[in-house]
Amino acid sequence: MAPTETAAPSAFDDPTYRTGIVELLGVLAYGEISACERLAEDARMAPDLRVKVEIAAMAVAEFGHFEQLRDRLVEMGEDPFDAMAPFRDTFERFHRQTSPSDWLEGLVKAYVGDGLASDFYREVATYLDPSTRELVLDTMSGTGHSEFVVDQVRAAIEAEPRVGGRLALWGRRLMGEALSQAQMVVAERDALSTVLVGGIDRPGMDLAAIGRMFTRITEAHAARMETLGLAA
Amino acid sequence: MAPTETAAPSAFDDPTYRTGIVELLGVLAYGEISACERLAEDARMAPDLRVKVEIAAMAVAEFGHFEQLRDRLVEMGEDPFDAMAPFRDTFERFHRQTSPSDWLEGLVKAYVGDGLASDFYREVATYLDPSTRELVLDTMSGTGHSEFVVDQVRAAIEAEPRVGGRLALWGRRLMGEALSQAQMVVAERDALSTVLVGGIDRPGMDLAAIGRMFTRITEAHAARMETLGLAA
Repeated sequence: MAPTETAAPSAFDDPTYRTGIVELLGVLAYGEISACERLAEDARMAPDLRVKVEIAAMAVAEFGHFEQLRDRLVEMGEDPFDAMAPFRDTFERFHRQTSPSDWLEGLVKAYVGDGLASDFYREVATYLDPSTRELVLDTMSGTGHSEFVVDQVRAAIEAEPRVGGRLALWGRRLMGEALSQAQMVVAERDALSTVLVGGIDRPGMDLAAIGRMFTRITEAHAARMETLGLAA
Repeated sequence: MAPTETAAPSAFDDPTYRTGIVELLGVLAYGEISACERLAEDARMAPDLRVKVEIAAMAVAEFGHFEQLRDRLVEMGEDPFDAMAPFRDTFERFHRQTSPSDWLEGLVKAYVGDGLASDFYREVATYLDPSTRELVLDTMSGTGHSEFVVDQVRAAIEAEPRVGGRLALWGRRLMGEALSQAQMVVAERDALSTVLVGGIDRPGMDLAAIGRMFTRITEAHAARMETLGLAA
């Protein structure tokens, strides 16, 4: 088969790989725009303008990530909104199940979600062609507001120790929902899961590797909870 | 009196002028952050993800303007949030009085508000020291999404002509509220109004000039409404 994307043979010559990448960029783009949207919404619960501005800055960073992913889809000749559409229900369900009841829960959600997304991006990047890998690593940089979240959560727990127990439970719920939604996405999207597990002539993760990946992600989550002063 | 801000004599040696500039930057910064917040909120009413993303992009642009104004206040040794605080009630009142009932009203509000703010920035810039003038002209660049708004509003009116009458009324209400809030701000803030009307040894607007400024702003508003296909 003649290469269609570039003069040199490319990973995109494999139509399943190409479909998988479009699905991957679509799910990441929807994740970023919906994180942006929810942060903007959560900002309304902020106790003062300083906190509101910090949360808004996180939302703006997510929007920047969204734009990078969207632009790549456009470069590939795909309609970004069509690529994102299949993941709408997943994210809407996730956000409905994890709607914060106050701004602290919102901050923890932003911090935990950002961290989980970064971990997942880094894990997935290994199995991607160089150009997609670079994009994914670029957009996984987080929102750069971790220190602010850590300070706020730790101060809140110090002022009212009971808050720690509630937020620890909240962190566990976020992790559980995230894993359950992620699993459904992979189960439903064959091409996307092929990107992860590899094809006939392309290496990927075997089941043991997928198990180890989940272990690493879970451990990183526990470390983040500890940084916040919360039991994982 | 020895200059305190720079080695060369500067407009900031006049403490009333300096206070007026802090108030001006404070009111502009609050205006930008509250516009950003309301746009993010209005985005929830968007009929689809494409429109939502366009509205979010406008909100992100407002946040960028806010950051420029905030950073200048920090450079001046002022706490930006303290500088913004006196204008909270004004903007909250404005947004409460002009809460859009659908996404089209939200778009018109963004477009009209953006335009009014740009006009006001340009008018005020004339009376500022060069460094503040440059900042104000820099942040008045609008959100760069006018074309999108014009297309959406014109398409909505074409699909349902009655919409035009409702949005025209809405535009008039926005203008009325904006003028009434602006007038209250100027009436309550002596230093800020001195920046506009000048001091003993600094030129500013006399009453006739203020009158002409309002005429220009009103005419520009009418032109914008016409661009949207609405009667002013």
